[in-house]
Amino acid sequence: MADVHPSAIVYPGTVLGEGVKVLENAVVGKQPTLSPRSTTKREPLPPARIGDGAIVSTGAIVFAGTTIGARVILGDQSCVRERVEIGDDVVVGRGSLVENDTTIGALTKIQAEAYITAYSTLEDNVFIAPCVVTTNDNYMGRTEKRHGEMRGPTIRRGARVGGGAILCPGIEIGEEAFVGAGAVVTKDVPPRALVVGNPARVLREVPESELLDR
Amino acid sequence: MADVHPSAIVYPGTVLGEGVKVLENAVVGKQPTLSPRSTTKREPLPPARIGDGAIVSTGAIVFAGTTIGARVILGDQSCVRERVEIGDDVVVGRGSLVENDTTIGALTKIQAEAYITAYSTLEDNVFIAPCVVTTNDNYMGRTEKRHGEMRGPTIRRGARVGGGAILCPGIEIGEEAFVGAGAVVTKDVPPRALVVGNPARVLREVPESELLDR
Amino acid sequence: MADVHPSAIVYPGTVLGEGVKVLENAVVGKQPTLSPRSTTKREPLPPARIGDGAIVSTGAIVFAGTTIGARVILGDQSCVRERVEIGDDVVVGRGSLVENDTTIGALTKIQAEAYITAYSTLEDNVFIAPCVVTTNDNYMGRTEKRHGEMRGPTIRRGARVGGGAILCPGIEIGEEAFVGAGAVVTKDVPPRALVVGNPARVLREVPESELLDR
Repeated sequence: MADVHPSAIVYPGTVLGEGVKVLENAVVGKQPTLSPRSTTKREPLPPARIGDGAIVSTGAIVFAGTTIGARVILGDQSCVRERVEIGDDVVVGRGSLVENDTTIGALTKIQAEAYITAYSTLEDNVFIAPCVVTTNDNYMGRTEKRHGEMRGPTIRRGARVGGGAILCPGIEIGEEAFVGAGAVVTKDVPPRALVVGNPARVLREVPESELLDR
Repeated sequence: MADVHPSAIVYPGTVLGEGVKVLENAVVGKQPTLSPRSTTKREPLPPARIGDGAIVSTGAIVFAGTTIGARVILGDQSCVRERVEIGDDVVVGRGSLVENDTTIGALTKIQAEAYITAYSTLEDNVFIAPCVVTTNDNYMGRTEKRHGEMRGPTIRRGARVGGGAILCPGIEIGEEAFVGAGAVVTKDVPPRALVVGNPARVLREVPESELLDR
Repeated sequence: MADVHPSAIVYPGTVLGEGVKVLENAVVGKQPTLSPRSTTKREPLPPARIGDGAIVSTGAIVFAGTTIGARVILGDQSCVRERVEIGDDVVVGRGSLVENDTTIGALTKIQAEAYITAYSTLEDNVFIAPCVVTTNDNYMGRTEKRHGEMRGPTIRRGARVGGGAILCPGIEIGEEAFVGAGAVVTKDVPPRALVVGNPARVLREVPESELLDR
């Protein structure tokens, strides 16, 4: 049985797992709204699926076509767009946005006010600090071919990205790498490397004591 | 006819154009709330006006005294303050805030989680990437004369500002200029210049192939 | 008498002072939701207390266990977590988050979209510009001892922190210091120092004319 606050809106067809909580004013399973300029006729997306024990917090929004794993916490005022796959035990912090067509692995933590752009891949056990910025469009809306060219980041297992860091489009952050707070990452970061600065440069390796597999 | 979700609040007098959609929990036409310290007696602002085909998405807020053009999309959980003029076909991304007394030209795109400060001017066809920060107060609240001194940015036609970039108060970004992701812009950027870094420096010109008028 | 909009939710026991306003869709006094992984049995927190003349704006959230001073303004879509103490005449800007176990002194202004991490101390008359980022965890979730090690910033009386600036964990910003827009602060800032850059370096002293006690 799910526990849905009377002020929440859960669209018909949405699959809520055992013990799911949907808090005040949350909206779950909404279809994307067609742009008034859009000429395509879109089929409705399949319903959202929320895993056992997950929490959709106050004012959060989950789109249709998205699957949320077990025991996931979507923070207050957060938003998860359509066609997103979120693994078990993930946290999406308060106010954060996960854009469409993104995959997030189990146990990954996205802290508050972060921005995960469309077409991103975050593997397992990734840590995204507050206010991290990701991007996916080198041309910022200026080329005809842009849809094929939009590439979000790939953030490998166990990587950590510090507060307010910015990732340029298509960047890969290697396994267990560490991006310092405020770094502006303009090229790929090797596994276990620790980078800082604007533009980000490798400073040293992540110490053994901080690795997942130590 | 407008399509207003039953959970949305549209204040009396608000003008909703043909085909406007107001989604779940949106609030349209609210008056600013007087600060408890305020001693001025303010007249109510004129009603908000929302153009034909515009969409006010889930949880978004539009203040009174503001005019929104045709086919504008205000993203989920965004907010547009009072005395703002937004042209046709503009997008204000999810979670973004447009502060009071700001003007935004037609076809401009503001992506998610951006902050457009009070007294800003964005011309036509501007692109604001996610999480861009603008500012308008060099003294950060510390001078008596500050109200006369607050100056937001002026962002000229076709300029693009990258993800997480920060604009200092009163900056002008020239026509078709390009501010790289994470740049901290401390002085005006010439037309067509591409700037990066903290503080931002000119790196090169924007290539012909990316200009609007090519 | 308080003035609570019919769409707002105020939990039983919440103490609303004289003249408090709670606007559309705000949620006041909510208990933290236990993580589905949590095994601790927590007592409910004491009710939230909102001081005379305070305003809880549209869509804002205030947790139980938190005390808000007189004439405080919590902006639209902002959020204040549990066990926070906010002094009189404070402003928390639109969309900003104040995390748990934080203390904020009288007359401090936090502008829009800022992030105040858990275990922070902001003294009186502090100015936090839009989109400021604070952090409290050098290990980003990777050590067993981390709870004892999480340290937010200490921001002394009259200090000002510029737009989009980032403070590393445990940083102290001295009295009347000035952190420039976009600075990445990796070590303590002396009183009255003005710092800029990534990493932030002292540029000069704050001029006498901008001090609180001039």
